[in-house]
Amino acid sequence: MADRILMLILDGIGDRVVKELDDRTPLETADTPNLDEFSRKGVNGIMDTIAPGIRPGSDTGHLALLGYDPYEVYSGRGPFEAAGAGIELEPDDVAFRTNFATIKDGRIVNRRAGRIKEGQEELSKALQDVELEVDFQFEATVEHRGVLVLKGEDLGGDVTDIDPHGANERIHESTPVEDSEENRRTAEIINDFTQKSIEVLSDHPVNQQRAKEEKPPANVVLPRGGGKVPDLEEIESLHGLNSAAISGITLVRGVCCLAGMDIIDVEGATGGLDTDLEAIMNETVESLKDYEFVLVNIKGCDLSGHDGLPEQKIDFIEKIDEHLEALKGLDDTYIAITGDHSTAVTIEDHSGDPLPITILGGDVRTDDVEQFSERACAQGGLNRINGMVVLNILKDLADRTEKFGA
Amino acid sequence: MADRILMLILDGIGDRVVKELDDRTPLETADTPNLDEFSRKGVNGIMDTIAPGIRPGSDTGHLALLGYDPYEVYSGRGPFEAAGAGIELEPDDVAFRTNFATIKDGRIVNRRAGRIKEGQEELSKALQDVELEVDFQFEATVEHRGVLVLKGEDLGGDVTDIDPHGANERIHESTPVEDSEENRRTAEIINDFTQKSIEVLSDHPVNQQRAKEEKPPANVVLPRGGGKVPDLEEIESLHGLNSAAISGITLVRGVCCLAGMDIIDVEGATGGLDTDLEAIMNETVESLKDYEFVLVNIKGCDLSGHDGLPEQKIDFIEKIDEHLEALKGLDDTYIAITGDHSTAVTIEDHSGDPLPITILGGDVRTDDVEQFSERACAQGGLNRINGMVVLNILKDLADRTEKFGA
Repeated sequence: MADRILMLILDGIGDRVVKELDDRTPLETADTPNLDEFSRKGVNGIMDTIAPGIRPGSDTGHLALLGYDPYEVYSGRGPFEAAGAGIELEPDDVAFRTNFATIKDGRIVNRRAGRIKEGQEELSKALQDVELEVDFQFEATVEHRGVLVLKGEDLGGDVTDIDPHGANERIHESTPVEDSEENRRTAEIINDFTQKSIEVLSDHPVNQQRAKEEKPPANVVLPRGGGKVPDLEEIESLHGLNSAAISGITLVRGVCCLAGMDIIDVEGATGGLDTDLEAIMNETVESLKDYEFVLVNIKGCDLSGHDGLPEQKIDFIEKIDEHLEALKGLDDTYIAITGDHSTAVTIEDHSGDPLPITILGGDVRTDDVEQFSERACAQGGLNRINGMVVLNILKDLADRTEKFGA
Repeated sequence: MADRILMLILDGIGDRVVKELDDRTPLETADTPNLDEFSRKGVNGIMDTIAPGIRPGSDTGHLALLGYDPYEVYSGRGPFEAAGAGIELEPDDVAFRTNFATIKDGRIVNRRAGRIKEGQEELSKALQDVELEVDFQFEATVEHRGVLVLKGEDLGGDVTDIDPHGANERIHESTPVEDSEENRRTAEIINDFTQKSIEVLSDHPVNQQRAKEEKPPANVVLPRGGGKVPDLEEIESLHGLNSAAISGITLVRGVCCLAGMDIIDVEGATGGLDTDLEAIMNETVESLKDYEFVLVNIKGCDLSGHDGLPEQKIDFIEKIDEHLEALKGLDDTYIAITGDHSTAVTIEDHSGDPLPITILGGDVRTDDVEQFSERACAQGGLNRINGMVVLNILKDLADRTEKFGA
């Protein structure tokens, strides 16, 4: 009897019909013998990750798939990014994502400081000398990106971004989204941090060197996406499963980390189209020996969706499909294959369109669906389900759940 | 890219199978080439406006379709009728629907005062002299119908009707549904109003004239359906859409009005089978130039359902279908076609049976449904959805929604 659970999340897999594809979706167009075989062996349906018509982020989408109600637990992207970057967080902390940017005469002339690739550690070290009203932690992560964590008890998480997002704009002053003493305090502190980052970074040797090389200096840090660290009940206690996650992207790693899951590093696994699918699949199979529940996120389709590139999305789907061969021996595992949200090439963004889902494993009630796609799966035996129940369905199939009542 | 939204509500369109129609529904029996074409071009499903097995009113049904939870916001029909009649309401007001009726020896001998057609304005004027503990507003609307609005801060909205509803019954004394000082106060005031209406109206010249003409006098006002004016978040703020409604019936106009929508008057648009469908369709197309979201309610099918007349319902459906030709050029609009509730000719009342729904527009995931009907749509790609999510789905399609999360 199968008693392991695998959730394979193909990030942004869902789409709409595309004129250039003869009114088919990229997934419908792609040649996917393995996915189609899984659909034939499984029970299929469509899934609203959060609710019909609601566009999930990757954070809220994964929260829902782990069985949390994102409307209850979501408090902004910052804490997940920070957790995903490996920073230890405590429940009262307030975390922000940040960008190194280039400021000139009060305006942001380059929001990513030319995607700075060297010297971030030195800049980061210099920023440790900033004096704030509270303790803080700043870490550079990838390129211009970083995280800022404010430590302290009386801090609110609901403040506006310093980052103006647009080009050639002035730095925004952070203000409370809802007025409270705690939010006002946080806003003041990050306004202060931003000003002090300018003082500390402007003449920093790294930026002197960049000036010589005619690269835009990384002379300001722009916090955004702030939020209090959510107090999530861990998966082990919520679902009674020891669990792990494989993902190349910080945000998803952060969600899983704050959910108390182990994060498995896979060499070569990135959030890009260049990710090492073979290594991911090997580690997936391996990890199911140690863990009762494994979540695997593969990002690529989402990127092609955001970029409006149906052919690229098709190619990547076909590439994933080839590597799914590796999952065929998992006889002791119930597998769900779906996405966290659609990313429609027609709108180049996440969309609220439901996702195809296939659940397979020994004794599931198979149906007549012969293709893993948005429209074929809509005719399947699962009908239309909500993302928040998927893990419950898997736990029930794997006989890992308790009766409610007598 | 289509970015407009049209919701076409065919009031009471859904039905059950009817023996005289060879066990088909009126909608299945009707010849509807245009509706069927829309189904072929769209994605189809069935919809529970509020919840499976729950019979919506036209008020609660439309509230749900606008994205409100009627269990949270609905407080009785009175406020919607009052708003629909064009009365300005404030959040603390309590509104009732009223009937002019005929009372004799303490019993209601004619609940509608013979559907009085003349003199209501004079009667209404006389009623302004009634002295109550609070300010009030009384307006006669159509025939025997009217609205009574009590103004004041300490009034409850949850009291029983004065109107006994049945024939030859005594006036009921209004009492609080749930005991509270506010409800007791409201009940006392409308009991008082009713008694005073008898005093004011009994010898009124209009009624002296009616006596001469052997018409039943309009010698009492019977309040019913009382409720506090609900504090609805306006559609513009709730959904970010500027919006308008076209409807010939007061109740639906009232719902849309309290939801902050503009109400578009269409000459010849009534709540009846004689409504000017051509004028409605022309104005629908016209209004979509000015508004991002337009709701159109066409009432007729509901009347035939209430009267248990399947053939009449079929005829009206076919008449609607002919006029839908006018919507075919709306390339920049996502259109949802459905109803607010089923009105089954077999039970001559609203029923909780789900409604067919078709959503069409550019990039929707079409399905194999070839007919707009209760049973054909049940096989469609939307599966079974709830009425409260329809506007979210349309907003997502029209790319007029925000991502929840990142």
